[in-house]
Amino acid sequence: MKILITGTSKGVGHILANALLQEGHNVIGVARSESAINHPSYLHIKADLGEASSVESVLAKIDELDALINCAAVAHMNPFLLSEASDLEKMLKVNLVAPYLFSRECAKKMISGNGGRIINISSMASHLNIPGELHYTLTKTALEKMTQLTAKELAPYKITVNALGLSLVKTDLLKGLSEKQLQELKKNLPYPEFLEKEDLMHAIRFLLDEKSRYISGQLIFFGGIC
Amino acid sequence: MKILITGTSKGVGHILANALLQEGHNVIGVARSESAINHPSYLHIKADLGEASSVESVLAKIDELDALINCAAVAHMNPFLLSEASDLEKMLKVNLVAPYLFSRECAKKMISGNGGRIINISSMASHLNIPGELHYTLTKTALEKMTQLTAKELAPYKITVNALGLSLVKTDLLKGLSEKQLQELKKNLPYPEFLEKEDLMHAIRFLLDEKSRYISGQLIFFGGIC
Amino acid sequence: MKILITGTSKGVGHILANALLQEGHNVIGVARSESAINHPSYLHIKADLGEASSVESVLAKIDELDALINCAAVAHMNPFLLSEASDLEKMLKVNLVAPYLFSRECAKKMISGNGGRIINISSMASHLNIPGELHYTLTKTALEKMTQLTAKELAPYKITVNALGLSLVKTDLLKGLSEKQLQELKKNLPYPEFLEKEDLMHAIRFLLDEKSRYISGQLIFFGGIC
Amino acid sequence: MKILITGTSKGVGHILANALLQEGHNVIGVARSESAINHPSYLHIKADLGEASSVESVLAKIDELDALINCAAVAHMNPFLLSEASDLEKMLKVNLVAPYLFSRECAKKMISGNGGRIINISSMASHLNIPGELHYTLTKTALEKMTQLTAKELAPYKITVNALGLSLVKTDLLKGLSEKQLQELKKNLPYPEFLEKEDLMHAIRFLLDEKSRYISGQLIFFGGIC
Repeated sequence: MKILITGTSKGVGHILANALLQEGHNVIGVARSESAINHPSYLHIKADLGEASSVESVLAKIDELDALINCAAVAHMNPFLLSEASDLEKMLKVNLVAPYLFSRECAKKMISGNGGRIINISSMASHLNIPGELHYTLTKTALEKMTQLTAKELAPYKITVNALGLSLVKTDLLKGLSEKQLQELKKNLPYPEFLEKEDLMHAIRFLLDEKSRYISGQLIFFGGIC
Repeated sequence: MKILITGTSKGVGHILANALLQEGHNVIGVARSESAINHPSYLHIKADLGEASSVESVLAKIDELDALINCAAVAHMNPFLLSEASDLEKMLKVNLVAPYLFSRECAKKMISGNGGRIINISSMASHLNIPGELHYTLTKTALEKMTQLTAKELAPYKITVNALGLSLVKTDLLKGLSEKQLQELKKNLPYPEFLEKEDLMHAIRFLLDEKSRYISGQLIFFGGIC
Repeated sequence: MKILITGTSKGVGHILANALLQEGHNVIGVARSESAINHPSYLHIKADLGEASSVESVLAKIDELDALINCAAVAHMNPFLLSEASDLEKMLKVNLVAPYLFSRECAKKMISGNGGRIINISSMASHLNIPGELHYTLTKTALEKMTQLTAKELAPYKITVNALGLSLVKTDLLKGLSEKQLQELKKNLPYPEFLEKEDLMHAIRFLLDEKSRYISGQLIFFGGIC
Repeated sequence: MKILITGTSKGVGHILANALLQEGHNVIGVARSESAINHPSYLHIKADLGEASSVESVLAKIDELDALINCAAVAHMNPFLLSEASDLEKMLKVNLVAPYLFSRECAKKMISGNGGRIINISSMASHLNIPGELHYTLTKTALEKMTQLTAKELAPYKITVNALGLSLVKTDLLKGLSEKQLQELKKNLPYPEFLEKEDLMHAIRFLLDEKSRYISGQLIFFGGIC
């Protein structure tokens, strides 16, 4: 498959890009910075993810596409009363407007082909209502709603849209947490273990599969979150 | 009570401001344009609702506050594939960032007093997943999540935060709908009747009441939406 | 108003019956045992709440009715692996089948009048997913779903159906909890205070009011649960 | 794997049992009536699914188990006002108490082994709030809640519990619908196509897989329901 992944310079995007390349897929990675991935089937494009013109020019270079994985995200923690509007706006740009733009532009490529798959990477934060994560939670909740709405609007074109709600993955996002905050988080998780690459890929493979043709608009959490 | 309402130049904000003035409250109205309201207990402030500096300077003029009603909102309809990122960003500014800013700044005033009440005006759109309303629905879904998160963070200060999910009100927002779209909407409503001023005020009075002290983080829909 | 309340021999049903009598309503109380309430506007009927024939014969004695409050409920705690099917079935009978029967029979009385109000008393348990409360939680979750479904089916008859999700009330139900379990529960409540009679009555009055005509299918939690 | 499936005499249970046998699994089928399945790896047990003693005696014959699929269910349609308590109770017995009993008893077998997988078969009815399906919807909503609660209680034993919400499958359940009701249903489905055996098996395989170790308490709908 030809798969576009955002946020491949690090974190979950990086993990998934490498894993999908290993399984023989062609991967187009888009990120604000360079990527350390060096593979004959990998194409890296630097772009400002939240800018319409930038995203449109990236997609203009691509003629066909089978799948999109919206992975790029930023996070920070701040009690509501001390948080800043400018931070919220920045986060909305990367975590919501960018996936919106990529979904819309990539869907157009998929429509002219044989349908496709969109997977939005969300987070346990949307379910756990964690104090101090207002900004992040708002963006992820909106992303999950976008998953449902685009699933409905894109069903006639055989494009499924689903979301994965990650529990703990060893990435930079977690470095912002103190050990105490991490322990507090784990208490809310029936399965507090860190997710390995294979845990993620198992779900990604499931959703990318042709046989998932009638599964769309779903949000699957890891970690036993419910 | 001293109540700040956003979006009082027209629509639901205008209706509520008039009704609350009639019941003897002091109302501060904030809107982008002038207001036709002329009442000794009414103070109108023109401001750009989505700009932090603008909102902060509005609130600097106010020394105490009992309640905030986040009413101001914009809407438009567009199929997902034809929608524009710039429209989504504008809508996020008015429908999400502005309520966020007013909630934060007004909460500070309430904390230094005896607690308070925040009411966010949401819409049936968040529940009905209506095709063509992706932008609007994302902003309202995020606003409802903000209601829950701020309810939790502000509970120690005796500030309750709740949301009302309106069904049909005769305002300009509806004028964007064709008769056919309106009939389609009504089919999804167990109670398709237009809401009158008294329907709204009954719920507003309920939430503003001192006896609602332990009701927070709730979303109450009109129209039988569930 | 003429109001039927189930479970008036003790607990929340007892509190509400007394309060509504004080406010001048006529109350019909139904419970398995006697009631200590002695008031000229109060009629007590002993009945087996989960038995169709019993409920039908109770309702045969009543010619008209304005409101129904489904209050009667039983509770017990048990880890899933040690719980018994017979206990689940007993609980389903009282907490789900009884409200179902009363809703159906009382709705018939209301239809032949001018519509009416049904209020189902639910619990924070349905939201908090508390370990050891599987049975109770299943019955309350089903009751909340019944609230939504009957709200839709009864909308044409001007009968609204809503649910109140109580947090902590000082009744016998709580006596089954150890001090440690109680503290654990309170940690999940933004407002951990015990609900007073007036907190409950404020919400009951709101829902019974004629002005709540377009509010149906809603679940309002106390305690800041969201 | 050694997999117990309820309701194998017809419908989805029959389809799944055959498919899993074909893939080399050992299947124990439990149903009220005989089964037409004749396969060396298939064991059929006749039992009354809602009776604790009956289920316990079935499970006493089985020493170890890797997975349970709760498939058996009954359905009927009836407007709320014309529905009968006895029908609701019968349906609760088969659709809720039986899965509860099998979950509990099978979990004990899995605990003494290496953990396991429980899959509860639910339905789009729980999401669509279809008029006339009150009984069925209540049982499926409670089953989905049971999925979440048992997922949490069984997490320490490495037993995951998930639910699949089926859209349309060509089974006897659908025969109760008129052509008009079926068309009405399809309107609510982004993917109105009938599910094939392979659609179901793809999701079953996903959940049974060892790599789904951290996916529990989830409800995955087919048909684009969201």
